[in-house]
Amino acid sequence: MRVSIAALILVACLSVLISPAVKAQSLAEQYREPADRIIQAGMSNDGAYLKLQELCDGIGHRISGSDELDRAVRWAADAMRRDGHENVRLEPVMVPKWVRGAESCEMLEPRRQPLAMLGLGHSVGTPPLGITAEVVVVRDEDELDALGTAARGKIVLFNNVMPPYTSERGTGYGQAVRFRGRGAQLAAAKGAVACLIRSVTAHSLRSPHTGMMRYDDAPVRIPAAAISVEDAEMIARLQARGIPVKLTLKMEAQNHGEVQSANVIGELRGAIHPEEIIVIGGHIDSWDVGQGAHDDGAGCIMAMEALTLLRKLNLQPRRTIRVVLWTAEEVGLHGAKRYAAEHADELDRHVAAIEADIGCFSPIGYGVDCQDAKRLSVAAKQMEEILNLSRTLAPLRVTPGQSAPDVSPLKKPGIIVMGHDTDPARYFDYHHTHADTIDKIDPRDLQVNVAVMAATAFVIADMPQRLGAVDNR
Amino acid sequence: MRVSIAALILVACLSVLISPAVKAQSLAEQYREPADRIIQAGMSNDGAYLKLQELCDGIGHRISGSDELDRAVRWAADAMRRDGHENVRLEPVMVPKWVRGAESCEMLEPRRQPLAMLGLGHSVGTPPLGITAEVVVVRDEDELDALGTAARGKIVLFNNVMPPYTSERGTGYGQAVRFRGRGAQLAAAKGAVACLIRSVTAHSLRSPHTGMMRYDDAPVRIPAAAISVEDAEMIARLQARGIPVKLTLKMEAQNHGEVQSANVIGELRGAIHPEEIIVIGGHIDSWDVGQGAHDDGAGCIMAMEALTLLRKLNLQPRRTIRVVLWTAEEVGLHGAKRYAAEHADELDRHVAAIEADIGCFSPIGYGVDCQDAKRLSVAAKQMEEILNLSRTLAPLRVTPGQSAPDVSPLKKPGIIVMGHDTDPARYFDYHHTHADTIDKIDPRDLQVNVAVMAATAFVIADMPQRLGAVDNR
Repeated sequence: MRVSIAALILVACLSVLISPAVKAQSLAEQYREPADRIIQAGMSNDGAYLKLQELCDGIGHRISGSDELDRAVRWAADAMRRDGHENVRLEPVMVPKWVRGAESCEMLEPRRQPLAMLGLGHSVGTPPLGITAEVVVVRDEDELDALGTAARGKIVLFNNVMPPYTSERGTGYGQAVRFRGRGAQLAAAKGAVACLIRSVTAHSLRSPHTGMMRYDDAPVRIPAAAISVEDAEMIARLQARGIPVKLTLKMEAQNHGEVQSANVIGELRGAIHPEEIIVIGGHIDSWDVGQGAHDDGAGCIMAMEALTLLRKLNLQPRRTIRVVLWTAEEVGLHGAKRYAAEHADELDRHVAAIEADIGCFSPIGYGVDCQDAKRLSVAAKQMEEILNLSRTLAPLRVTPGQSAPDVSPLKKPGIIVMGHDTDPARYFDYHHTHADTIDKIDPRDLQVNVAVMAATAFVIADMPQRLGAVDNR
Repeated sequence: MRVSIAALILVACLSVLISPAVKAQSLAEQYREPADRIIQAGMSNDGAYLKLQELCDGIGHRISGSDELDRAVRWAADAMRRDGHENVRLEPVMVPKWVRGAESCEMLEPRRQPLAMLGLGHSVGTPPLGITAEVVVVRDEDELDALGTAARGKIVLFNNVMPPYTSERGTGYGQAVRFRGRGAQLAAAKGAVACLIRSVTAHSLRSPHTGMMRYDDAPVRIPAAAISVEDAEMIARLQARGIPVKLTLKMEAQNHGEVQSANVIGELRGAIHPEEIIVIGGHIDSWDVGQGAHDDGAGCIMAMEALTLLRKLNLQPRRTIRVVLWTAEEVGLHGAKRYAAEHADELDRHVAAIEADIGCFSPIGYGVDCQDAKRLSVAAKQMEEILNLSRTLAPLRVTPGQSAPDVSPLKKPGIIVMGHDTDPARYFDYHHTHADTIDKIDPRDLQVNVAVMAATAFVIADMPQRLGAVDNR
């Protein structure tokens, strides 16, 4: 008897799952009301902006290996405990410690002029008196190659222009940022003594943009720094007029090996399948300038406050929603990789992992990705249904094949990895600069992002079928 | 016989002048062709942008009293001589020398954080160890008054918000800038030990904006500096949350009395009435940051190149067009006042004086002013006719009652003073900052401004009636 009832339920469930039309209606029937309730509550909730002030104004920037990052990690755990979340804990991660120290770049010829600069993360420093050399400007690899031996003993400046953002994600940045990562290797291979890059941005008020560089197995490690777009263009104009430019670059930058940091975790335990996990999060570290507000304080706060919002509404989903604040993203995804390794034995019970790491402007949708193409296709369709549940969600779009940095180590066959995306048009104006401060975030944008993330995570965590499931589960 | 022909000509001229319709047609008939020719030639002329590079990249910023200003003055005279202008000369002007020196502002509590700052011009310095005090934030005079004695011994921060520009000239800036000028006096009167202002801008990438302050006859002179919008908002947020903020302000700023500078003058002499003068110009000094590109390198270059363009086209007007590059505008219109005094005996032969000092974006028109209301009304109508002469000029608008800083000492009954205006929407993003650099100027905008200024000045200098004349001349 018992068995036959179970079989009947199974058949009923299967019939619902097989027909997309019926399934869509069912999702709408089930979740329109809670989605509306979450979004309405989210839009009148001021907790997120206060948390963001505590993080940004109270602690400030928090680079990997710094005391500020330690404080931010402890603050986040305390805040999640205060909000009553379950299983709040720190998971240790070894992270690199790179310290900028004092640094400067001065044009000596044709006239003395300090340049606006920021050394690149991981770069070695210069000798104490700096490196003084003539500059040679190139736009890209081809122009560098065309120099032949002319870069020997020089400072190479990569003056590669990043086009402005309009609506598309990442492409302009992705193109131009390669010189930040590999410029020093390319320049050193041509005999250059230092590498400068034009800051990776389409909009500058003489604002240098830092970021990570790497040497890989380059035999010679030369210092690398970003200068402002304005200064890069000035040097390029002078070179175009045949006027030699000589600079002194001074950097105290040092790599100090690894120190301990932690991923911060807190949960809203699931009512029926607590062992199944939906991860939402951001990265708790930032660069050592500005306040790491858009990158990625806001992403962390969105996830923390989304959980708090659901808890306040007494909405306990079937599955567990886990906030993960990854550490040391900027310097190589250290927290994210460690999380994936540490949780290897429960990855098959990770349904989805969502990171917000493209700033806090108007929400525009979700990047959705999966190693398994069929699951990706199913998940993308389900996400479209979820985004049809409310008027606030309806304008959001699903972008298959995209996600976010810290969920990338979780891109395994069974897990749907996602990026919570906001309008990127101005993100790279502030990215990795002194100007990534909380005033650049409209409190209403933060509210709506929290609401959207909470509603989306709740439905994914509560809906009967597993996101992306191509079989019965 | 001779007399009666002259009388006939006079009657004919009067009849032309009396009827606006006939007059307009006459102006159009006479000047459509040369206006078109000037504008067409201007739009393919690259001389202005090269000159602007020589000034901005070659010399850089040039504050009153600096070696750079001396170099810029000599460079401008040389450039005008090279272009073949007549009566190129320097007219000495005594100007203030204020030297910024090293300066910094650091937040000590609730945490250590350097602030982005620029001392204000004319400010006294601090003691060598700086001034350390708690900050009190006010929005305006009323909030300062409401503090009673609570500002005593504190650093007062005026956090007055400048609204963004859309199309209207100057109002938002004019409102917010009063704290830059008078903030130190207001704060000192309440017993404050230093004055900070929120930078006067509607758009910031942690960009401090300097500018002139004044003590007038204040009994106590306290140091004054601008901090970035971001830092001002951070301090205001902390104060709103009840968190005390303590700062150390260090400034080596010193006033060094007066030194000699010069206005730079060059002419295209008139063919028929060389004694009658149309002045066009900008100010050759700048603040001691950035390159003084929009403010006001471009204004100087527009005037220099407009003259060169007319000379290249062999267009010699009836009256003389005189380029005047005023010195020491930023620190109190010293060059402009000296020019008016030096040329007192020929001011009645000054027909019009036009300055471009609102940046180099798309031209939007001319402010037109005169002490004599009737002349102003006539001149404004004539300017509208002139702007109807060509398709390029037609979108430009005349704004009666407005002009520009350096022509203001020339606002006498007979002289029409004018401002050559360009779209101000982004001007105050760069104004008085490290970011006022030549890359912010589109070479095509510079071309069209040169062309517009040349065409306008030519018609004013050549048209039979004197601009604004309410009688026969």
